[in-house]
Amino acid sequence: MARRYVITFGCPDQIGIVATIASFLADAGGTIVEASYHTDPDTGWFFTRQEVAADSLSFHADELRARFGETVASLGGEWQILDTGERRRVVILVSKEGHCLYDILGRVAAGELDVDVSAVIGNHTDLATITEAHGIPFHHVVFPRDDKETAFAKVSELVDAADPHAIVLARFMQILPADLCARWTGRALNIHHSFLPSFVGAKPYHQAHRRGVKLIGATCHYVTAELDAGPIVEQDVIRVDHGDSVPDMVRKGRDIEKVVLSRGLRWHLENRILVHGNKTVVL
Amino acid sequence: MARRYVITFGCPDQIGIVATIASFLADAGGTIVEASYHTDPDTGWFFTRQEVAADSLSFHADELRARFGETVASLGGEWQILDTGERRRVVILVSKEGHCLYDILGRVAAGELDVDVSAVIGNHTDLATITEAHGIPFHHVVFPRDDKETAFAKVSELVDAADPHAIVLARFMQILPADLCARWTGRALNIHHSFLPSFVGAKPYHQAHRRGVKLIGATCHYVTAELDAGPIVEQDVIRVDHGDSVPDMVRKGRDIEKVVLSRGLRWHLENRILVHGNKTVVL
Amino acid sequence: MARRYVITFGCPDQIGIVATIASFLADAGGTIVEASYHTDPDTGWFFTRQEVAADSLSFHADELRARFGETVASLGGEWQILDTGERRRVVILVSKEGHCLYDILGRVAAGELDVDVSAVIGNHTDLATITEAHGIPFHHVVFPRDDKETAFAKVSELVDAADPHAIVLARFMQILPADLCARWTGRALNIHHSFLPSFVGAKPYHQAHRRGVKLIGATCHYVTAELDAGPIVEQDVIRVDHGDSVPDMVRKGRDIEKVVLSRGLRWHLENRILVHGNKTVVL
Amino acid sequence: MARRYVITFGCPDQIGIVATIASFLADAGGTIVEASYHTDPDTGWFFTRQEVAADSLSFHADELRARFGETVASLGGEWQILDTGERRRVVILVSKEGHCLYDILGRVAAGELDVDVSAVIGNHTDLATITEAHGIPFHHVVFPRDDKETAFAKVSELVDAADPHAIVLARFMQILPADLCARWTGRALNIHHSFLPSFVGAKPYHQAHRRGVKLIGATCHYVTAELDAGPIVEQDVIRVDHGDSVPDMVRKGRDIEKVVLSRGLRWHLENRILVHGNKTVVL
Repeated sequence: MARRYVITFGCPDQIGIVATIASFLADAGGTIVEASYHTDPDTGWFFTRQEVAADSLSFHADELRARFGETVASLGGEWQILDTGERRRVVILVSKEGHCLYDILGRVAAGELDVDVSAVIGNHTDLATITEAHGIPFHHVVFPRDDKETAFAKVSELVDAADPHAIVLARFMQILPADLCARWTGRALNIHHSFLPSFVGAKPYHQAHRRGVKLIGATCHYVTAELDAGPIVEQDVIRVDHGDSVPDMVRKGRDIEKVVLSRGLRWHLENRILVHGNKTVVL
Repeated sequence: MARRYVITFGCPDQIGIVATIASFLADAGGTIVEASYHTDPDTGWFFTRQEVAADSLSFHADELRARFGETVASLGGEWQILDTGERRRVVILVSKEGHCLYDILGRVAAGELDVDVSAVIGNHTDLATITEAHGIPFHHVVFPRDDKETAFAKVSELVDAADPHAIVLARFMQILPADLCARWTGRALNIHHSFLPSFVGAKPYHQAHRRGVKLIGATCHYVTAELDAGPIVEQDVIRVDHGDSVPDMVRKGRDIEKVVLSRGLRWHLENRILVHGNKTVVL
Repeated sequence: MARRYVITFGCPDQIGIVATIASFLADAGGTIVEASYHTDPDTGWFFTRQEVAADSLSFHADELRARFGETVASLGGEWQILDTGERRRVVILVSKEGHCLYDILGRVAAGELDVDVSAVIGNHTDLATITEAHGIPFHHVVFPRDDKETAFAKVSELVDAADPHAIVLARFMQILPADLCARWTGRALNIHHSFLPSFVGAKPYHQAHRRGVKLIGATCHYVTAELDAGPIVEQDVIRVDHGDSVPDMVRKGRDIEKVVLSRGLRWHLENRILVHGNKTVVL
Repeated sequence: MARRYVITFGCPDQIGIVATIASFLADAGGTIVEASYHTDPDTGWFFTRQEVAADSLSFHADELRARFGETVASLGGEWQILDTGERRRVVILVSKEGHCLYDILGRVAAGELDVDVSAVIGNHTDLATITEAHGIPFHHVVFPRDDKETAFAKVSELVDAADPHAIVLARFMQILPADLCARWTGRALNIHHSFLPSFVGAKPYHQAHRRGVKLIGATCHYVTAELDAGPIVEQDVIRVDHGDSVPDMVRKGRDIEKVVLSRGLRWHLENRILVHGNKTVVL
């Protein structure tokens, strides 16, 4: 795809924001390929995401950043400009279940997800072979019951070495310690195998089966210190009935888990997700 | 539709149940129009529902009940035989919001729901006119904050007078007292405007909006003494996004509330729902 | 809801459109409540829809129209400005089946659809009573097999008398003649009971049953001279299986027909649908 | 999972079928783990599928086949008994696009699909590496424009060598010749990237984009001589809007193609699909 600059911007709503940004881009000759706007009436916060064709501007990303920064300085907002010409990196954390990992690796191999998988880290070795078949390094980090701290320190080190734009918990069954949640804020995506806020925590399909629900769900969310309570990025559900045992639910649920996680990851990598408070705006 | 006898039967699973019932029906010359079976491996309980063409038998419903009772006596189960030739009755409880009531009345008028609406009872009068336009009596029962007991006694009396097969809480905003829950066990259907068990209780769309979910739901369930915790009959969801305010959610949610409630009511009237413990089997 | 001016605008894509419109609104002190933009890369056409708070401007709708017209004159586009303070009117055409009519009337009664139903016109009288119960005039127009021309002339006259913003074919089973299609271009919404382009024409559920599809659908589209081939506004589907007879499909299909049609009507009344060629952009 | 015998049986509907089969199984001490029945009122054909716990019978599969055959001989039906203890085999045909292949291989690797992939055959080599990483032989068969006959002869030979229970066309872009369709009747599953019968043939997403549909679909069907017209096994859809280009549709469509195909394959391998005329009954 042709190179683009992706501008994401948020500020307190006020008259003239769109005019300011649009005039700046029009004056620079920028071709807007895609543009979305949203104002949240509850918080009074304005959000926009715009994709500009890189070759329509006579200057480069850094210059765009400098000029854009000046332009919006008085609006009191936060912004980011992503250059799609710069390669992005992701690190994936896994345990034993492979459906989410297979799905992401398949999409990367097919060119659908335009990202480098720098590393896969697992607390078991079940998924080492398939990872390495894709030419990606697999790191095994043992998680002893009585010393998870050391294990997480090792994970943290491996992640830092890759300096990734996203850390994906692809059915990684360990709860991140608060300090990692803090350091990875806005970069760590988890897939929870329930329709949150229902069935927080362990064994959600068992909980769902016990309650006799008629649909089961999956939720992709940013990781925060409170378990399964971070900003929700995407959710989906699939129908079940009385004939579905817990293993049936597990199997059916996988089909939405992997799709929901991959969708969330794609949006994250395209800078489509703007987080405000504990909610997301997906533009 | 041609008259049918609907047999519903449940018992501890054991070898020979199907053979016993099927042989009984075959010997009587019964034409099975529809048959479903389910065994729950967790509880070891067997369920079946069978529709028999009434005119394929040389005897009537009472005789069928007598003979069937004898046939399955040794299996230790519970059963019911519904004669679709006997007209069924429903009473509907409402408040101010009419979408569920309109939907049910429309289906009855169109002949889709084959039932008599004996009465509509409202704690407000907003829905009196439309009810009466359908030729159905509307009863207004005032619910004073400090004397709901009297109000519920009046509702109970009105319901009893109709001796209904179903009592439908069509966005009736009052919480049933425990004694009514007990007396109406297995007959009172409620629609809760969330994907239970998420967002139990009051203002679920406000709760959903606050949590930032990406789908909202509706749940039809049998009423039990514990609020919004009865056996789930049916659920559905609809997609929302960051642009949807609480009123938008309320509006979108109505479209699934009414469909889910009407679907549940239909299944109930056709004796498709077998309750076991706190779960339903829909056959 | 607070009064709004809804601007819809389309023109050949070019640099500076957003800046032009946004600057105009900012200079006038206009508060943009909602804004959407889309550029179609195939046709090179730009689309926008903007809602402006009426009380944020110091002038009224006509003045806004005059000023906006001047502002965008050089862009070579088409536009419209809807004043939500002006009451909108709809005429509904029906036959015997009432589910879509009931649904629309219910939404109007509940205040969800903010529109006046000027008249309901039926080629049968089945739906006269319910229409009149809502205080709406019902007109019966007989459609003899050998003189539909006269019948359509009568319908046309009744519709013209109401000068409606939308003409809704709510399961009206007559095919509009080409001249009416032409005169009502962009105002006549039909609901077809299939997932178009599958199963054009008569008895789509029979066609679907014969083909053994696993989902059935409904399509809301603008009426054009070619049968069931107009611009698609909205579609939805519902699952069926081998156990569903044609009458079951008819019944299940109704639940999506009515929702899809009402959704399309709502968008139409809110000027959310921009037609370009044979496709719609819903903003 | 514990070994099971899966009985599938179809015959003209008549009184006593269920009694005959159930009595036979009860007399043999067979534990029925799962049972489904269906009668098609249009064709008057009865269908059943029953799973019997293998260890509840005192004899083996061949003896069961002999005894069952005798039992139902007078009913004039067709039947099959699958022994889940016998390993099943599948051959997969691919071209360049890998999402369906990745999905199936991932499910096999995870133990979700209990089958041996005997071979993958491709008319391009793009998917050789991933296939071989799973320890599965990949065969490259060149399809020259002017000699597809020789190519199909080679494919046929490779397939025959594996004697597979299913031949999966996982986005294999070649049209099977009539003789192969005939020889593989009831064993060859294709995934078509549209909601059939809409958009038969080549480039269905282009067709869908041109028509402006609001949902796109995928259809798994058995291959027959008429293109994309075989018995439909499963379908699903996903929402698109005016903002989705053809490549966006291709990407979104893949997520349902792979799930729909894998679901169809699973049902096929579990003998859940009974074909009658050009329709399927999925039990």
